[in-house]
Amino acid sequence: MSGERHWPTLDDVRALDAADTLGTCRDRFALPDGVIYLDGNSLGALPRASAARIAQTVTREWGGDLIASWNKHGWIDAPARLGARIAPLIGAAADEVIVADSTSANLFKLIVAACQARPGRSMILTEPGNFPTDLYIAQGVATTLPGRQVSAAADIVAAIDGDTAVVVLTHVHYKTGAMRDMHAITAAAHAAGALMLWDLSHSVGAVEVDLEGCGADLAVGCGYKYLNGGPGAPAFLYVARALHGTLASPMTGWMGHAAPFDFGDDYAPADGMKRFLCGTPPIIGMAALDAGLDTFDSVAMADVVAKSRALSELLIAGIDARCPGLTMASPRDAAMRGSHVSVAHPNAWEICQALIARGVIGDFRAPDVLRLGLTPLYTRFEDVWQAVEIIADVLARETWRDPAYAVRAAVT
Amino acid sequence: MSGERHWPTLDDVRALDAADTLGTCRDRFALPDGVIYLDGNSLGALPRASAARIAQTVTREWGGDLIASWNKHGWIDAPARLGARIAPLIGAAADEVIVADSTSANLFKLIVAACQARPGRSMILTEPGNFPTDLYIAQGVATTLPGRQVSAAADIVAAIDGDTAVVVLTHVHYKTGAMRDMHAITAAAHAAGALMLWDLSHSVGAVEVDLEGCGADLAVGCGYKYLNGGPGAPAFLYVARALHGTLASPMTGWMGHAAPFDFGDDYAPADGMKRFLCGTPPIIGMAALDAGLDTFDSVAMADVVAKSRALSELLIAGIDARCPGLTMASPRDAAMRGSHVSVAHPNAWEICQALIARGVIGDFRAPDVLRLGLTPLYTRFEDVWQAVEIIADVLARETWRDPAYAVRAAVT
Repeated sequence: MSGERHWPTLDDVRALDAADTLGTCRDRFALPDGVIYLDGNSLGALPRASAARIAQTVTREWGGDLIASWNKHGWIDAPARLGARIAPLIGAAADEVIVADSTSANLFKLIVAACQARPGRSMILTEPGNFPTDLYIAQGVATTLPGRQVSAAADIVAAIDGDTAVVVLTHVHYKTGAMRDMHAITAAAHAAGALMLWDLSHSVGAVEVDLEGCGADLAVGCGYKYLNGGPGAPAFLYVARALHGTLASPMTGWMGHAAPFDFGDDYAPADGMKRFLCGTPPIIGMAALDAGLDTFDSVAMADVVAKSRALSELLIAGIDARCPGLTMASPRDAAMRGSHVSVAHPNAWEICQALIARGVIGDFRAPDVLRLGLTPLYTRFEDVWQAVEIIADVLARETWRDPAYAVRAAVT
Repeated sequence: MSGERHWPTLDDVRALDAADTLGTCRDRFALPDGVIYLDGNSLGALPRASAARIAQTVTREWGGDLIASWNKHGWIDAPARLGARIAPLIGAAADEVIVADSTSANLFKLIVAACQARPGRSMILTEPGNFPTDLYIAQGVATTLPGRQVSAAADIVAAIDGDTAVVVLTHVHYKTGAMRDMHAITAAAHAAGALMLWDLSHSVGAVEVDLEGCGADLAVGCGYKYLNGGPGAPAFLYVARALHGTLASPMTGWMGHAAPFDFGDDYAPADGMKRFLCGTPPIIGMAALDAGLDTFDSVAMADVVAKSRALSELLIAGIDARCPGLTMASPRDAAMRGSHVSVAHPNAWEICQALIARGVIGDFRAPDVLRLGLTPLYTRFEDVWQAVEIIADVLARETWRDPAYAVRAAVT
């Protein structure tokens, strides 16, 4: 089928799948037939066990034990319990991570907390083109707190200075897949006396993250991408233990109180990560995230990272060999790339739609990017190979020119 | 069984149930056998249709259609769609309510927004003993915004003055069940140029609320009490249409952007209520809340309000007639009372536990309150009657003195 250099045969990639130490993990997911799902970086696939786990929480716990479930089924401890499960995936200790609210809300809490911990500094430093909610929340904090401003610098390390309160960066870029050097940038922030906040939304569960190893102060991340926690899953936040006593959340809801069930009139922050809780935890969403985290049981992150790289190397080789007209928009150096590969094309929207019609689910990011996510727990080497062949066919035959594929949807 | 004045017979209350226009609504709930559930004001019971509704969202939508579900199944519109369903329960227009985040997070957004809309005024006015998260969030806002402070005044109307930026009150008090006069207090706030923010958590779905009629500016409320949306359900917020253009949320997450899927670098608030969204909506929780709202289909709020009053009048009559030793902690005037009745006793904790052992589920609120919630859609007159007889028996025989009932749980 393909005589180009560096492009293996179907038998070759099937041999890779047969030898894959994570190969059996795919059985943990209920993937629809006829679909090659390359969008787990946007919404992780449904774990096979999730429906039953959620049904148990709904029917037996909520329905059967009603209000008693807060104690009887440990609902009240879910934020800390799930945080402790995420911790080993990001190089954190169990008591440094808690699950709460959305990534956006957690960004708000931590950017405000960081600014207040650096009272003499005015700058929230980030990069242009960062994931929008990171930029928007930083702008909202600057509008809310007096004397703060947001600076977006392409050369982050050069821009860090004595006026920088906090550096807010995404570890793996949502559009390009470019992966930042957490050690170097965290060190640069610290050298200038600033705090470092990492958004791990496109990292957690797919690439190596070592928050403690690089001395990061703060992090947030998403539960519904590689963690497979379901649409709009609760998010998480991390605060390095050394800062537990000094940082405080502005969103001082009752779940962050030292003694919420004393119902006192005065706020007093809980010790540790619980002070970063706000309202009542979303228990059904927590159950779904719990089932999502189960998909990492007995999985070594080193194997996940190795497979992510092998999958993306195969995909890039296929794009180079089989897909003329696509421009690589992701770093070619695997050490600088996360677990998705992006390509640019003036008609990326139409191509994305034409691929969906052929069962290859990636996504479009304005203005011209087709994004293809590789989820080590369920993406097979054969999936990548077949996807490349379908992309090649859509390009060669220009099937994307069908006017039906030009229609824009509400969510893109 | 009972010869006291004003206390009906079992046949009498069964006749009330038989004549109840809401009597068939109880079939919409999956209540466990052997339980008289008087805690729907804390966690609403499981609607019978919820499990299937949630399973559809999980298995068919998430599992089957994956990322396409944001458009195909209207996930992206869930916050506005569910807000429009809540609106008629609180006297609001469909476009004045949106579902998002937790009650606590929504309080934070709206108190900050209100303070910023009244820049020359320093005071966030509330009452001592308000639900803790209302107090704590107000205190958090005062810590975050410069020059703001919280004042807690027992006589709210007398305390409103030209320095009041916003008055933050709970309509129905979580502990006593006392119901505030929304018209009078809102008018007093407006007369002084302050904004009025109502917490409807213990009101919505159980008592009459007319936000537009009383000219309220702002409101928040809970999805997991009388709305039956499940533990930690998404909450809602209301902003009067006249303020839509001027108020802004500090939590400027991407879902509140005018064009979130343009992925631009600069925040621009959406029109209308969408600017009060923050992160990605919790879709599974939204599905559960949707099923909770279905329990109000074809139900007239006037019937709900009338039944709530009749149930609480019966309960109060029973406590008076049959339960010496309990002190009424709720207003006796039904016009000043919400849909729960609270009684005080020095051993309220132990009595609450002894009642739970007998299948009567109320709850305890520190230091000495036993709280009994009446949910018009599923509480029967016979339930109230039986509960009174069991309370009377526990008191008469002092079964609450069993040491097992003194053990405190994590969540009370």
